[in-house]
Amino acid sequence: MRGAVIHAPGDVRFETLDDPKILQPTDAIIRTVVTCVCGSDLWPYRGLEPIGDPHPMGHEYVGVVEEAGDEVTSVRPGQLVVGSFATSDNTCANCRNGWQSNCLHREFMSTCQADLVRIPNAEGTLVATEETPGDEFLPGLLAVSDVMGTGWYAALAAEVRPGSTAVVVGDGAVGLCGVIAAKEQGAERIIAMSRHEPRQKLALEFGATDIVTERGEEGVARIKDLTEGIGADSVLECVGTAESMRQALHSARPGGNVGFVGVPHDVTIDAQELFFSHVGLRGGPAPVRRYLPELIDLVLTGRIDPGKVFDLTLPLDQVAEGYQAMDERRAIKTLLKP
Amino acid sequence: MRGAVIHAPGDVRFETLDDPKILQPTDAIIRTVVTCVCGSDLWPYRGLEPIGDPHPMGHEYVGVVEEAGDEVTSVRPGQLVVGSFATSDNTCANCRNGWQSNCLHREFMSTCQADLVRIPNAEGTLVATEETPGDEFLPGLLAVSDVMGTGWYAALAAEVRPGSTAVVVGDGAVGLCGVIAAKEQGAERIIAMSRHEPRQKLALEFGATDIVTERGEEGVARIKDLTEGIGADSVLECVGTAESMRQALHSARPGGNVGFVGVPHDVTIDAQELFFSHVGLRGGPAPVRRYLPELIDLVLTGRIDPGKVFDLTLPLDQVAEGYQAMDERRAIKTLLKP
Repeated sequence: MRGAVIHAPGDVRFETLDDPKILQPTDAIIRTVVTCVCGSDLWPYRGLEPIGDPHPMGHEYVGVVEEAGDEVTSVRPGQLVVGSFATSDNTCANCRNGWQSNCLHREFMSTCQADLVRIPNAEGTLVATEETPGDEFLPGLLAVSDVMGTGWYAALAAEVRPGSTAVVVGDGAVGLCGVIAAKEQGAERIIAMSRHEPRQKLALEFGATDIVTERGEEGVARIKDLTEGIGADSVLECVGTAESMRQALHSARPGGNVGFVGVPHDVTIDAQELFFSHVGLRGGPAPVRRYLPELIDLVLTGRIDPGKVFDLTLPLDQVAEGYQAMDERRAIKTLLKP
Repeated sequence: MRGAVIHAPGDVRFETLDDPKILQPTDAIIRTVVTCVCGSDLWPYRGLEPIGDPHPMGHEYVGVVEEAGDEVTSVRPGQLVVGSFATSDNTCANCRNGWQSNCLHREFMSTCQADLVRIPNAEGTLVATEETPGDEFLPGLLAVSDVMGTGWYAALAAEVRPGSTAVVVGDGAVGLCGVIAAKEQGAERIIAMSRHEPRQKLALEFGATDIVTERGEEGVARIKDLTEGIGADSVLECVGTAESMRQALHSARPGGNVGFVGVPHDVTIDAQELFFSHVGLRGGPAPVRRYLPELIDLVLTGRIDPGKVFDLTLPLDQVAEGYQAMDERRAIKTLLKP
């Protein structure tokens, strides 16, 4: 089979690789139907994270089960499945608490930009659709496997409530899905912080009521202007830099909440400042598995269409161009078809 | 009148001071019935916080209204009142959200170890008891004005739920009140971290089910032994040091919650570590005003008795000894009677 391999910053190649095999009776092999490039893939691509030896890439996937290990009973060959970027047995203490992305047997997926993918913990990770959905639903289902699930978690972690005001920091695919999530969870006012016109447009289409183009303390001041001077009830931090975290924390009202889903890179939080702000803070890799049934349903009933974040579709063998387009901000998110 | 004045680390004096006056029509003057020394008063007393010019001390109080400004209608002279260490108008946007300790007109009380005290924002700060309660309730009501209100908030911020497991880090008066709060809020298992026998005893009396004497990573390992290996649902951080915060964060299970009420001194949090832990974090000066009616009721009906944290009672003129006894850990908390 063939798949993407990163060799160095800016150097992603499409190569012939060994076919994956069932290694554990809990594994499954899927044939990829759609996969994509994630904003977090750009950290190593941009040289901001060490790469080490050349290795495969990708953690988002919709596929058809090709083969299932002996202990996998919940899905069977031929079914279309969606899974999370983090695998989970769905039975351990953390999974039972709803934190499948902290499963005691978790493995982070990392080989999905390929024709075939081995899914560990397949029983607790994959969810099959009842019927094989039309192709028009594939982008939405693919978004659910990471960015939509992550935006959903960001809104939950930020404790979005009916009638509340939410701010979304970050206009990448996750931030845009965060707008969808805030709307679905009942936010009345949704302020998207974005200075890129196509992303602003999509944010408004997804339910944003206001766009703030200013950044940093200027952006915070704008948010306060829009929120009785005190800040927003909920802030979704969807970037992961020190600047975006500061902006998020300062945009929340006293006693408000920040849900942070951008993997933090060199971010420290001053506990005394957090203390006097009364802001609640929760982050992490989204427990997407917890939300899969609900989000798949929202997509297949047409209630949400997070697939719109894919504004570039390429054959999988052009994966390198998919990275480059996102790196140069020519694309929000690249969908790849084997 | 007379009151406590701190001059330097270890140097608290009882001095003659000017009587307080009504400065704003929203002020009241109360005659102190009981006041006390707070663990946080020990920071400057121990030279761990700058003192600057000599200044009065104290922020906990139960008193009788002596005089009320023209705009104060909720309490009247002669009534016994309890208030928070942070004043609040109880009408601003933050107060309406329940964050009275972040009131837009907040003032932190700081002159309460004295015969007479001026209370700013009296209307929104003071709560009068329906009848004048017996003397036996005074320590409990005094505790409500800070340590019990703070322990209550810690448990709420840590999202204690019926049937859950709570850990309390810190065996000072706030931590001990945190045990009461965790129990009242339904925690089934309450693990108090303490190595001081009288405090362990009181913790058990207040509802702790387990005592852990180990600290740091050893203490964390003990907590994990007691919690299916994953950590506690809720952790109340009631100290404010880097070590206690680390211990608290590491004692919470993935997706658990830490409520932190010890004012953080030189504490920074690594956002990436917090991210991968999925732990929720909220702290701050407790919005005691929000809880006053409920907590006063719990005390006056005898349901809780947080007054037991006072294990030393002195006349107000011996306030210096009150500080010293707490500094030397001869007393958990000193009650002072004018």
